Amino acid sequence: MPGAEPAVTLFTGIAQLVTPPAGPQRGAAMRRLTVIPDAALLVQGDRVAWVGQRQDAPDAATTHDLGGAAVTPALIDPHTHAVWAGDRLADFEARAEGVSYEALLARGGGIRHTARATQAASVEQLSALARPRLEALQRSGAGTIEIKSGYGLDFAGELRMLRAVALLAQQVKGTLCPTLLLHVPPTEGRVQHVRDVCETLIPQVARERLATAVDVFCEREAYTLSETRDLLTAARAHGLAVKLHADQFHCIGGTELACEMGALSVDHLEASGEAQIRALAGSATLATVLPGVSLHLGLSAAPGRALIDAGAAVAVGTDLNPGSSPLFSVQQALALSVRLNGLTPAEALTACTVNAAAALGLHNRGALVPGQRADFLALHGPDWRDLAYTLGASPVQAVYLGGDQRA
Amino acid sequence: MPGAEPAVTLFTGIAQLVTPPAGPQRGAAMRRLTVIPDAALLVQGDRVAWVGQRQDAPDAATTHDLGGAAVTPALIDPHTHAVWAGDRLADFEARAEGVSYEALLARGGGIRHTARATQAASVEQLSALARPRLEALQRSGAGTIEIKSGYGLDFAGELRMLRAVALLAQQVKGTLCPTLLLHVPPTEGRVQHVRDVCETLIPQVARERLATAVDVFCEREAYTLSETRDLLTAARAHGLAVKLHADQFHCIGGTELACEMGALSVDHLEASGEAQIRALAGSATLATVLPGVSLHLGLSAAPGRALIDAGAAVAVGTDLNPGSSPLFSVQQALALSVRLNGLTPAEALTACTVNAAAALGLHNRGALVPGQRADFLALHGPDWRDLAYTLGASPVQAVYLGGDQRA
Ligand SMILES: [Zn+2]
Ligand SMILES: [Zn+2]
Repeated sequence: MPGAEPAVTLFTGIAQLVTPPAGPQRGAAMRRLTVIPDAALLVQGDRVAWVGQRQDAPDAATTHDLGGAAVTPALIDPHTHAVWAGDRLADFEARAEGVSYEALLARGGGIRHTARATQAASVEQLSALARPRLEALQRSGAGTIEIKSGYGLDFAGELRMLRAVALLAQQVKGTLCPTLLLHVPPTEGRVQHVRDVCETLIPQVARERLATAVDVFCEREAYTLSETRDLLTAARAHGLAVKLHADQFHCIGGTELACEMGALSVDHLEASGEAQIRALAGSATLATVLPGVSLHLGLSAAPGRALIDAGAAVAVGTDLNPGSSPLFSVQQALALSVRLNGLTPAEALTACTVNAAAALGLHNRGALVPGQRADFLALHGPDWRDLAYTLGASPVQAVYLGGDQRA
Repeated sequence: MPGAEPAVTLFTGIAQLVTPPAGPQRGAAMRRLTVIPDAALLVQGDRVAWVGQRQDAPDAATTHDLGGAAVTPALIDPHTHAVWAGDRLADFEARAEGVSYEALLARGGGIRHTARATQAASVEQLSALARPRLEALQRSGAGTIEIKSGYGLDFAGELRMLRAVALLAQQVKGTLCPTLLLHVPPTEGRVQHVRDVCETLIPQVARERLATAVDVFCEREAYTLSETRDLLTAARAHGLAVKLHADQFHCIGGTELACEMGALSVDHLEASGEAQIRALAGSATLATVLPGVSLHLGLSAAPGRALIDAGAAVAVGTDLNPGSSPLFSVQQALALSVRLNGLTPAEALTACTVNAAAALGLHNRGALVPGQRADFLALHGPDWRDLAYTLGASPVQAVYLGGDQRA
């Protein structure tokens, strides 16, 4: 329709509209939110056209009253492993009964159990299993969700996981960001494996646009620093963004390498010390903390407070996965980051919006300012801090994506 | 209608029916669940009439297919402060920003803020504020919920809180158990205050049946051991059950006193040591742990594992309250008790069902065996362990109270 203007809607009845500024925020800037009382929000097409006080709002053909809700940007989950088959309930019970992870692996449990079940599933089965998990994340406030591969036992298995994400992207509202994760290296033939990933898998993923980023699990028991460098270098050569799982148990140089190579983010960081915090504070790389893992495994949490105090830009994710973080709510990840990683409520909101967007290489969302995507939340109450405060129930009344309420 | 038989319904399509035995369980017995695959459940009136395998089920006029769900007893929350006015969002933000609790009190925040707002509210206002909280707890799986007074600034304030619970009991499905809590002693005139509570407040509460139990916060900053003994003695003399908040910060003898006096439960226990664990293991008093407080305040959790290993009977509650545990899900309390208090999934289910019932003096619920109340959960999935595993989303598909689905 030539000349047709995109639809314009004015959202009113907003007790409080709260937003960080657009783009990633670091250090003390993570606490600087704009809070507009008695606000209105003008949406044109799928974009924010104007925000301000209700009394100053422009006219619009359509108005929609949100009934006195607090409004914030929709949340963004920058780190999930939401595609998997099988379950880990027996593992969970055994661990609570005192069985070690090593013993679980020996009896066929652990990540290998998930990998075997995932390898045996079709693309359609994988997407059907993942769909209710994504819907739970979306109900909890997520407008954009990253999903990693990494449970494939071979390249075909990895590609099936990424194809399942592509199928899901057609089925669910909201944005899904697929990442190729190099998770578990083979026990033999590692040199050849890394070469094959660099020369075959990464090029194919880039060519078919099956992922926008490559992630590597850089850890003593996983990929070495040197292997990680080769993998990230190949990813960049094929136009893919890079990121890392690093410092989860040991600091073997992954964080420093990622910062040096301009990675979007380094994730986990539970074991990070002074040197790693300094590297992140001195780079544009996001530091993504994952409090669900700390809660579920009872391990120490990443030093979110120290990272922000040093000047780093921190993001928060669920790390949704069956073994180490069965956390199906990005709002609860936000709330847990206050309890476990030492963030303030304002920092946690910034971490779960503009900073999480930057960890995915996205700069068009996460803030309610003109030009950004109109992805936003209407809360049940009039105070946005419920988002950080409430445990065990959802303070989110409705999720709007591109200005439309999610069904 | 003389001679009318109560309605009989056979619930089928139960992938797995899981229950502890009736009555409180202690030590290793907390792990002994009955698991019936491909089960059926016969309900007559509001009671369980029969459970067993589908193939052995008796005929019934009505059948109801649960579609392959796991079924467990409905959960019981034995410790909440769900009636309050005002909010503590400013306190929450300030604490996350590093302000001490003492500084919050000095600026008019903390529990005194809640007490002032609660004191200023009418019975109707208090019940209207509490209702969505109770509905959240019920959605999370609670069929029976205890609610304490304790934010009143005077006796009239305490009575208003208990009358709000009585009003709520008419408005919501499920069972509410009101408890008179002696929470914050006055700074002056304590001897007279304790005498007035014993001679005026407790008798009136007993006479008007406004509570079934009396609870005392026995702690260095609250009621002394000697005051606690006087208060509990008066409660028992008026036919009320007794229980305690004890060992939250310091062990001043409350736990030992409660066990000696036959209290229903001692709650908190974060600071309990060998002597307190031994006292609980050697008595019929329930040890109620509250993992929401540990998570929210970042304090150490009660020694659930050590209590069970010593032979005690452990229960779990939310401690729902605005200052130290904004946890609106009894299922999440169950799940947190596995992570924070060291319970196994089976122990956690027992803790949240028959043991929580016993902590309220109730012996007619918590187990799906003939004669017990037909309060049960149908989960989304076929494996009951989802109840202990899932974080941030509800594994509960439907809650049945007395055999009827909660609206
Ligand atoms: Zn991960
Ligand atoms: Zn309490």
